[in-house]
Amino acid sequence: MNLQAIRALDAADPLASRREAFLLPEDMVYLNGNSLGPLTRSAQSRLIELERQWGQDLISSWNRHHWIDLPQRVGHKISRLIGASPRNVICCDSVSVNLFKLLAAALQLQPGDGRVLSLESNFPTDLYSAQGLQALLGAERCQLQLVAQNELEAALRTGPAVLLLTQVDFRDCRKLDIAQLTALAHGAGTLVIWDLSHSVGVLPLSLDQWRVDFAVGCGYKYLNGGPGAPAFLYVAERHQQSSSNALSGWMGHREPFAFTPQWQAGAGIDRFLSGTPAVLSMSCLDAALDAFADIEPRQLWDKSMQLSQLFLDLLAHSVDLEQLQLSSPGDPLDRGGHLAFAHPQAFGLCQALATAGVQCDFRSPDLLRIGFSPLFLRFEDIWQAARRLQAIVATGEHLLPQHQIRAKVT
Amino acid sequence: MNLQAIRALDAADPLASRREAFLLPEDMVYLNGNSLGPLTRSAQSRLIELERQWGQDLISSWNRHHWIDLPQRVGHKISRLIGASPRNVICCDSVSVNLFKLLAAALQLQPGDGRVLSLESNFPTDLYSAQGLQALLGAERCQLQLVAQNELEAALRTGPAVLLLTQVDFRDCRKLDIAQLTALAHGAGTLVIWDLSHSVGVLPLSLDQWRVDFAVGCGYKYLNGGPGAPAFLYVAERHQQSSSNALSGWMGHREPFAFTPQWQAGAGIDRFLSGTPAVLSMSCLDAALDAFADIEPRQLWDKSMQLSQLFLDLLAHSVDLEQLQLSSPGDPLDRGGHLAFAHPQAFGLCQALATAGVQCDFRSPDLLRIGFSPLFLRFEDIWQAARRLQAIVATGEHLLPQHQIRAKVT
Repeated sequence: MNLQAIRALDAADPLASRREAFLLPEDMVYLNGNSLGPLTRSAQSRLIELERQWGQDLISSWNRHHWIDLPQRVGHKISRLIGASPRNVICCDSVSVNLFKLLAAALQLQPGDGRVLSLESNFPTDLYSAQGLQALLGAERCQLQLVAQNELEAALRTGPAVLLLTQVDFRDCRKLDIAQLTALAHGAGTLVIWDLSHSVGVLPLSLDQWRVDFAVGCGYKYLNGGPGAPAFLYVAERHQQSSSNALSGWMGHREPFAFTPQWQAGAGIDRFLSGTPAVLSMSCLDAALDAFADIEPRQLWDKSMQLSQLFLDLLAHSVDLEQLQLSSPGDPLDRGGHLAFAHPQAFGLCQALATAGVQCDFRSPDLLRIGFSPLFLRFEDIWQAARRLQAIVATGEHLLPQHQIRAKVT
Repeated sequence: MNLQAIRALDAADPLASRREAFLLPEDMVYLNGNSLGPLTRSAQSRLIELERQWGQDLISSWNRHHWIDLPQRVGHKISRLIGASPRNVICCDSVSVNLFKLLAAALQLQPGDGRVLSLESNFPTDLYSAQGLQALLGAERCQLQLVAQNELEAALRTGPAVLLLTQVDFRDCRKLDIAQLTALAHGAGTLVIWDLSHSVGVLPLSLDQWRVDFAVGCGYKYLNGGPGAPAFLYVAERHQQSSSNALSGWMGHREPFAFTPQWQAGAGIDRFLSGTPAVLSMSCLDAALDAFADIEPRQLWDKSMQLSQLFLDLLAHSVDLEQLQLSSPGDPLDRGGHLAFAHPQAFGLCQALATAGVQCDFRSPDLLRIGFSPLFLRFEDIWQAARRLQAIVATGEHLLPQHQIRAKVT
């Protein structure tokens, strides 16, 4: 496929104009939007507004600039992207903290043995949250049971209290079927908690329709909310009145400013708030979400699949790349928004690509992850990335000593 | 005292030049730094830097701009203000969430009946955190016991598992004696958790020397970290190795980027991190703390006491103000950084003062709170505030209908 054909794809792309919403570094192809989404113009403007709000209007900004409603307002914007009623979503805290809240809430709704079923390959922080709750409650009330992917359905049929899964694997990007597994879980009397950190903003989701019980997701990956942006949580309306938030704090109280000594759960999803929200971070996420206005999640997925498929097509039949093994499912319908490749020099490849202006990331020991964030990437970017990857491998640049130096975080 | 004498106080004030570090609205006397500290020049610059870091350097900023070390770096800066080794302090999450972590950790260290002793008048979110943990663990493992101030010492002698107190009361600003109560608690076999939200940045503290076990504090009041700035927590070194963090998340893992399925507590205080920090908010707090460089906490307290005493002196013998009753202790050594006054029209007074350019705050039903944040307030500001308050009461402005309209948050 030549550059002219690639440019025709960009010209025909219904999402092409969304790139204008982003402030991307020149001469960089950013294939790491699955890890930290880039700065939007709206978030840039919001940073300037926040300086004025805080600097000039100070405490009165809680009302005047609606800081007080940020958790609900951001939740509302996210709800459309996950197929949920706005009443079922709220923005707060981190994924880890929110998982703890929801796991504790789910276990309180479930009599029985407290088994929490998950996959060995689940994102570690999800497992750590369950392990923390287990250490606190004791194994008779919370017991994490980890199985391999091929053992999952059999284990689920034994009726654990809770099924805790991430839809899209952070390593190989394999996608689980939320609708099917949720139905299977419910058939076994099990409640589900889905982690949507690698899903929201790139995959179409229908949480209400799929009758998901609980979910969490990340604000700083495909949602582009900024480094460490607050997370969100989802609670199905049927569970809200009967659910408790173990991390009860004043923002989740029915009347936060009554300052009564006794906790009273806020209405509906509001009870899942804890302390004061990190306004600067949450307001930037609020602004960043405007880049998704009027877009259907299905369009995001379609384009992301086209981008990843183009990348695979461009690399096919490249003799120099025979050591690069696709770890992700070959069928785009079976994966999320990134591709993972195993390569014996994956780290050097990642570094050499960065030097060549292509930013992707490395996961120990040998994975190169390449993210296809659909709002700002052009087909031409993918063409560039594939060409540069081929050039690096052909010249052996990834084997140079300067590409072997590891920083603390990669 | 005339204006000339007041200006002489400002001229002699060793902290006077620190006002230059702040961007304060013109024509506003801001007496609400005890609730939301104002914008510093350093935080303003940091917002601009963050835009560049995120926008240009994207994911590489975690190393390049040291985002990954923010919790420790901010903890380090705060440690000096609370009389603690830098190893004992870390910045993370909100006060409510951190209280939950520390209360769970303290109870795990304590065999026995799980009683958590606190004051009825404690800041509600502290009580809500304990109530949330109690609902989760059951009353046999965590039971909040609330007493009145005059019952505290007798209740403490019965040896509860944990004493949970806020040093400075958010309403009347009464200050508890941390050293004395901590010693009394230890004598009864009780561990202490101190909430320093209304203390840090205005009072001298010696947590290590006082042998405090655990503490939390707020980043957005006297520390000026910005709206909803992350909080901090303190764990005495002697407890760190034996303490568990129930909210275990990947940032608190010994090797966060090893992505192992089993939680392993990070070294020392690091284990109390949970999820990814809200970088934009935490980095602004980091910058704001530079305003405290080279200042001894004792200087902050001295000036705050002088400011509040001046305010009281200026209001004394004012016939129009006889309805204004001081709720705070009369002796400045017995209080924190604000003054609370009861007044039948406290809400109207607060609104009329705001209209006159004096920002203080109102706490239902009848309290006017006036904060004496020592880094940016001038003695002349206090003189102005007192004059305007007298003029409002003399003319009855606070009774005007437009000053009776209540917004959602006050």
